[in-house]
Amino acid sequence: MPEYLPTAPYRGTRDFLPPEMSVRTQVFGKLYEVIERYGFLRYDGPILESAEIYEAKSGEEIANQQLYTLTDRGGRRLALRPEMTPSVARMIAGNAGSLQFPVRWYSHPNCHRYERPQRGRVREHWQINVDIFGSTSASCEIEIFELIHDMLGGLGASEDMFVVRANDRNLLSSALTDVVGVTQEQLPEVFALVDRWEKYEREKLAASAEEIGLSGNQFDKLGDVLAAGTALLDELPAHVKDGSNLVKVLGSSAAGLIRFDPMIVRGLAYYTSTVFEVFDTSPENNRALFGGGAYSDLASLFTPQQIPGIGFGMGDVTLMDFLQTHGLLPQPRSEVDAVVIPVVEELGDAARQVAATLRRAGIRTSVPLEYRKLGKELGRADKAGARAVVIVGQEDWDAGNVTVRSLVTREQRQVTVDAAPTTVTELLTD
Amino acid sequence: MPEYLPTAPYRGTRDFLPPEMSVRTQVFGKLYEVIERYGFLRYDGPILESAEIYEAKSGEEIANQQLYTLTDRGGRRLALRPEMTPSVARMIAGNAGSLQFPVRWYSHPNCHRYERPQRGRVREHWQINVDIFGSTSASCEIEIFELIHDMLGGLGASEDMFVVRANDRNLLSSALTDVVGVTQEQLPEVFALVDRWEKYEREKLAASAEEIGLSGNQFDKLGDVLAAGTALLDELPAHVKDGSNLVKVLGSSAAGLIRFDPMIVRGLAYYTSTVFEVFDTSPENNRALFGGGAYSDLASLFTPQQIPGIGFGMGDVTLMDFLQTHGLLPQPRSEVDAVVIPVVEELGDAARQVAATLRRAGIRTSVPLEYRKLGKELGRADKAGARAVVIVGQEDWDAGNVTVRSLVTREQRQVTVDAAPTTVTELLTD
Repeated sequence: MPEYLPTAPYRGTRDFLPPEMSVRTQVFGKLYEVIERYGFLRYDGPILESAEIYEAKSGEEIANQQLYTLTDRGGRRLALRPEMTPSVARMIAGNAGSLQFPVRWYSHPNCHRYERPQRGRVREHWQINVDIFGSTSASCEIEIFELIHDMLGGLGASEDMFVVRANDRNLLSSALTDVVGVTQEQLPEVFALVDRWEKYEREKLAASAEEIGLSGNQFDKLGDVLAAGTALLDELPAHVKDGSNLVKVLGSSAAGLIRFDPMIVRGLAYYTSTVFEVFDTSPENNRALFGGGAYSDLASLFTPQQIPGIGFGMGDVTLMDFLQTHGLLPQPRSEVDAVVIPVVEELGDAARQVAATLRRAGIRTSVPLEYRKLGKELGRADKAGARAVVIVGQEDWDAGNVTVRSLVTREQRQVTVDAAPTTVTELLTD
Repeated sequence: MPEYLPTAPYRGTRDFLPPEMSVRTQVFGKLYEVIERYGFLRYDGPILESAEIYEAKSGEEIANQQLYTLTDRGGRRLALRPEMTPSVARMIAGNAGSLQFPVRWYSHPNCHRYERPQRGRVREHWQINVDIFGSTSASCEIEIFELIHDMLGGLGASEDMFVVRANDRNLLSSALTDVVGVTQEQLPEVFALVDRWEKYEREKLAASAEEIGLSGNQFDKLGDVLAAGTALLDELPAHVKDGSNLVKVLGSSAAGLIRFDPMIVRGLAYYTSTVFEVFDTSPENNRALFGGGAYSDLASLFTPQQIPGIGFGMGDVTLMDFLQTHGLLPQPRSEVDAVVIPVVEELGDAARQVAATLRRAGIRTSVPLEYRKLGKELGRADKAGARAVVIVGQEDWDAGNVTVRSLVTREQRQVTVDAAPTTVTELLTD
């Protein structure tokens, strides 16, 4: 007995069969549309990159543990991109001379990370990346926040389903040093502690704070700072606030798009001021959906030119969970709009001719590849989600006619072959 | 002085900056549309697959020389897919129980092969894959040939720009054994020789034929067979022709879609009867664009169930060369349709409000992120390809108005804010 290979995809990766793929293309097609309305241009890059662009810049965890690496036959050390930012930094740096900054770019790559698969985490995921490069204006923050609201709104989400929690790392630094009394040396560790604030129990946090060298009083103050919301701003020096784009946003008509939250820091190293995370507000799915931030110097690995920017990455797994939680997932599209059915096998050619006229009118149309009785074929057309069938019978055909039938209303009309596309279109839009 | 990493992509792979990406999305968007009109459903799968699915089935060359392989941290041997067929075979086998055969599926994956980069060959390419699974009817061949003509026609190609050269491996086997007197043992080597027929000089072919053990007379006969076209069919036994879908196509109203050509064999092992290649007819680019064929048993690695089918893969590199050769490449889309320009910095908020109304009407609209004088901003809007600008001035705005100007005709109108989207849309469609 022969042995067969397993049909499951590699662990942590996914097959997208037509129904899932239809949902995916609808969701992301909508997002492309919204993003392009803001004047963002799509780009793409290779999956394989030189391994060193990740090892040089990313956090230790990714470079050492989560990166898929390989060596090609020419001895080059390569990696499957774990994220798009280093790739786009490379492209921006390589083309900076011919670009009219600021530029608005987006992409939709798949990224690979070797992780233990679990809810919300896979090894290959598809991520929308949106960035503005070459500007430090607070208008960038406003545009990114507006876009996020429109993207989720475009997918049917109402404003109560999500919240954009935003912070400025410089405001937090100031609060930590000026209010809590954290030293410059302690700052990185305290940032890491803040990043875990909502995930850990209070006791564990207190233990960590003690290890860093914070007193009990400092730990309590830290808790107050993180829970203060906009009241924290009153405690910060004017020069710090004056330099913050986020403070400008909070003072603008766009303030309602975000909630200022000192607790948001983001793990990734390259953010330097504004950082934000979008949270699902549903108690069932109460977690970060995606996030991003601003960086003062994106492409320092590749060029001496300082290129600031702001952007975010939105992964498909958490997005789909969000849509599902709120009942916003679209239905898969039907397989076809219409099926042309020959009543006898000899009319197969005629059926193909009719199908061609329907297709020219933009109607997704199939013709049976193998002859079956009309009743059987009607059942299959129904199952494929067709809303109309065109029946080609011998007498009709000899007279230049066909019969168009709605599978929804069961209404049926005899029309000329030339009129068939119009009739089908009418039935489809009923 | 710091050293900077190179900004070029990994050798044999490509960055798609927005202009190239715009061409790519337009070309492939059109192809998706045409393919879906035939009732084909899109699917997708992971880039990483178990290495054994290629080593077990593909030609030696791919498995040993051209495959990018790696081992994950769990010790699994993986490969970057070099083609989509083994992946889709795995998916079809794994889901055969719930599919209503025949199924029409398509995909658009990127595939990796370690090759020396040259014209038409890269290491990462994007390939449209189209297949019908679960039928052996000659209607499958007809549908695939119709689809190919419509796909290229949809991209603007006329019928004289390409030719679909088709063969049936079984017809060729019969001709080789019955007409040329090739033995069963010699057949595989003679097939390989035929595959090189147009690439090599006659002397080199003759030498290869001699090595295989063909006489000079047999070599001449082989040349006659390969050049015979449809006349060859007269020399073949009836039972061979009766079993050939291609002969049925040639006897149908679809005969004009292809040219019967005994010289087409295709390198890949899994084709078992019909094979075809689409050639550019331009003398400047006279070569195969893409090809495909029929297989009697696609998924034998994964299931005992015999799943026949027919399909083809169309790579982006040769397709783009074809379109360029014939002047059919679309222009990159403009960056935006419209730009909303505040005359003074204080009207930035107002400009964003106006932009929001344009975007809601589906108009791709940007707002400057940094304030510049009107003249400068008009120049940038022009450079971005905008066809209209909406100018927000203080007096206008106080009266609830804006000024809409066409950058094409220079026509200018003062309208209410509410009327701006309609006015811009009119200007865009002029």
